Amino acid sequence: MIIVGELINGTRAPVAEAIASRDAGRIAELACRQVAAGATYVDINSGRVGDDEVADLAWLAETVREATDVPLSLDSATPQAVAAGLAECEGGPPPIINSVTLEGDRLAAVLPMALESGASVIALAIDDAGMPDDAAQRSDTALRLIERLAAEGIAGERVFVDPLVTPLGTAHDAAAQVCEAIRTIRKEATGCHIICGLSNVSFGLPQRALLNRVFLAQAIFSGLDAAILDPLDDAIMQTVCAAEALAGRDEWCMNYITAYRDGRLG
Amino acid sequence: MIIVGELINGTRAPVAEAIASRDAGRIAELACRQVAAGATYVDINSGRVGDDEVADLAWLAETVREATDVPLSLDSATPQAVAAGLAECEGGPPPIINSVTLEGDRLAAVLPMALESGASVIALAIDDAGMPDDAAQRSDTALRLIERLAAEGIAGERVFVDPLVTPLGTAHDAAAQVCEAIRTIRKEATGCHIICGLSNVSFGLPQRALLNRVFLAQAIFSGLDAAILDPLDDAIMQTVCAAEALAGRDEWCMNYITAYRDGRLG
Repeated sequence: MIIVGELINGTRAPVAEAIASRDAGRIAELACRQVAAGATYVDINSGRVGDDEVADLAWLAETVREATDVPLSLDSATPQAVAAGLAECEGGPPPIINSVTLEGDRLAAVLPMALESGASVIALAIDDAGMPDDAAQRSDTALRLIERLAAEGIAGERVFVDPLVTPLGTAHDAAAQVCEAIRTIRKEATGCHIICGLSNVSFGLPQRALLNRVFLAQAIFSGLDAAILDPLDDAIMQTVCAAEALAGRDEWCMNYITAYRDGRLG
Repeated sequence: MIIVGELINGTRAPVAEAIASRDAGRIAELACRQVAAGATYVDINSGRVGDDEVADLAWLAETVREATDVPLSLDSATPQAVAAGLAECEGGPPPIINSVTLEGDRLAAVLPMALESGASVIALAIDDAGMPDDAAQRSDTALRLIERLAAEGIAGERVFVDPLVTPLGTAHDAAAQVCEAIRTIRKEATGCHIICGLSNVSFGLPQRALLNRVFLAQAIFSGLDAAILDPLDDAIMQTVCAAEALAGRDEWCMNYITAYRDGRLG
């Protein structure tokens, strides 16, 4: 499972403070703790837009790169901020650009940077018609994105499609539709990664951690192989480990048993 | 979700002692606690075979029936013990006979009793070829059992097919094969229930409760609508509640929200 650690996000108050005061130590610590807990990528999101975002994202990228060897996930819809982040990543492992969509010229603005830098991309299943409603819209848009990216020269392992998780509180089958889309994408586009964030699913409902965890198990079972989550949440990381073993992706349960021996299963 | 409470099982030492000493209070308490925690049926298994089993199962049935109004699951492969249990259930809600298979004359021995009493049956996907190896064998045997039971006059809601859970430690895709079988059976035989026990899946592996719980989430998502489990295990009951909501079976998350308000989600 590919884990994108989500904690360095400027919409979280302590991170916003650290960004505003250029407290590199605090950001570095948050990066290192996520990596130690199993993050494959460290997401950075400045929580702001515009000129500030460009400077903030560049500083975050520089700070995290100095702290760890793990690649970054550059989380911004602002092409200039992505460009500034990419510049900081030169010479290191290729980052992920988080994210592109099929809306307007959003893809065109970022594609040349992805091609030049060798970055991967998170591709959200949104087009000019907006957010997808059901499983078919999700998989259709995702597959069109995969096709378009392949035509542009970005394929296979470099593509992380995100079928978009919507709140269960707004439609009783919201999570089931996402999982059905994951299943279709996994069947039709075997080489690419499928990723999602978790927390939207439980928006507005109580005991969100429980819902997020059980949703993740179901999504992994449907074919999800990457997730944007909090790797410091032991219960969710334990669920990842058990779900991968149960989904048949852990020969002889070696990863599961290793996690147990390392004390990571509680 | 239909929950069959599994705790009154003579293979558990305290239950064996209570059966041996005819300690009705202890059995009644175990029945009532499971019902309070959400058991739809209370399973009774004497843990012995032969003449003792007939007397023990009759006593367990009588004891639990006096303690609760919830129907029983008569857990025995001995037709005489099932008959004795059924006799104790007369006048109450129809129990489940746990279990029948397609092996030899096992079905023939129990069918007349099920027909006469109106009992439901748990039908294990085993035939004379033995335990199923993969998803196709599980669903094939289950569907033949469903067909045979329907031909004999037992159909729909009265049939609980069990695709048989085998240990993940013996085959990396053991759980995935079970879930694929559940998916097939759910599609082909919409009216019947699909049930399984959980604990086999984690046999021989560490942190069994974690695996059992995540497996249950995946099985519910595949179409499982009944399970034999320990309803006093809060974490597993919370997983049931979240998994049903996420699988799209809880309109407006009403059951989930009610469980939260009742303090059942922790």
